Amino acid sequence: MQHAEQDEVSEQDAAARPQTRSRENTRARLLDAAAQVFAEVGLGEASVEAICERAGFTRGAFYSNFESKDELFVELAGRFASQQVDGVRRRVAALIECGPEVDGDEAGMVGLVEALDVPGDVRLAVLLMSEIKGRAMRDAKTAEAYLAQDAQLLGEIAQLLEEIAHAKGLHLALPAHEAARTVLTAWEGAATRAIMAGLPEKELLEARAQEVGRIAHLIIARD
Amino acid sequence: MQHAEQDEVSEQDAAARPQTRSRENTRARLLDAAAQVFAEVGLGEASVEAICERAGFTRGAFYSNFESKDELFVELAGRFASQQVDGVRRRVAALIECGPEVDGDEAGMVGLVEALDVPGDVRLAVLLMSEIKGRAMRDAKTAEAYLAQDAQLLGEIAQLLEEIAHAKGLHLALPAHEAARTVLTAWEGAATRAIMAGLPEKELLEARAQEVGRIAHLIIARD
Repeated sequence: MQHAEQDEVSEQDAAARPQTRSRENTRARLLDAAAQVFAEVGLGEASVEAICERAGFTRGAFYSNFESKDELFVELAGRFASQQVDGVRRRVAALIECGPEVDGDEAGMVGLVEALDVPGDVRLAVLLMSEIKGRAMRDAKTAEAYLAQDAQLLGEIAQLLEEIAHAKGLHLALPAHEAARTVLTAWEGAATRAIMAGLPEKELLEARAQEVGRIAHLIIARD
Repeated sequence: MQHAEQDEVSEQDAAARPQTRSRENTRARLLDAAAQVFAEVGLGEASVEAICERAGFTRGAFYSNFESKDELFVELAGRFASQQVDGVRRRVAALIECGPEVDGDEAGMVGLVEALDVPGDVRLAVLLMSEIKGRAMRDAKTAEAYLAQDAQLLGEIAQLLEEIAHAKGLHLALPAHEAARTVLTAWEGAATRAIMAGLPEKELLEARAQEVGRIAHLIIARD
């Protein structure tokens, strides 16, 4: 009986697989299209129609994949956050592998600053997070999703800070979660102001690195 | 000739005065109405029509006072920032008058944290700043106005930090402008997350004070 059920499930899985792939592909294309439409006109004016048109899908395809425009944008923000964290993690791993030969009192943290400068469309990402935050302050469901994501991101950055501090023989001046919050806030704030000032991507990254560099000095314990 | 011209100007001034007061009153009422409409529906949906209806004015009155909805919202954000700075300044002045009897290594900065907790509708203020920032990242004119305001605010907070540090015999661990940026960013970030979490006003203020308190410890030099 148990065996028969498993067989049945396996058969269902096999049958569902191409459909699942197609579904994931549809979701991914809708998310890509949403990111583009969003970058151009912002959250308020990014309509389901415009997203569908850009992706080449019907509204039916949209609503069979997402409950609402809000649900799609929360997932989009989540995808962006994951990409950022993955980028930072890869860079930190490379940094730690180098060993503690880059040392000195605070030199190790310079590596962290560089590690945070993950490539990607920073302007789009910052705009997206900014508008998602605005939405989350007005909508409980979006807020819940945003805060869950924020907590996860913070936890991962805190872990990275601890790893790099340990690898470089440094001590954090405050609990890792609080240090992570301070770094992230500075990172985001500097990028926001750089975008407003109309800085090109290269200078935006420099301004952000400079700001995070200042914070790095603060979060290292001075014994 | 010079004298005659001055007389003419004075006469014009006298004639214009009641009209100026009326104009200022109209602007103030439009700004109050805009703040309310904005709090309810956000920047995207806050129409000139809705603002006029709330204020009890015609569209004609609106456009004889503001070039656009954006111009009004930049001025609204400016008014909010001024109110915050004035509130902080009054509290810091009172704190400094107390003299250095509240001392100890970092106790003086606790006063600063309290000074930053100016009364007012924090939720509205944070929502407003959040959406103005979003707008400023997409619109050069709004960005210019926002950045000018941000620089002024930062300068005033930096001066306050220097004054309080001096009065309490403390030293800042980083330049006053950078310390001010760190405090403001933490202040805003904590309020934003508290709003998302749906905290009531009292807990929102506590969460914000706690976050700024952490930053206060960081920005004080440990010799």
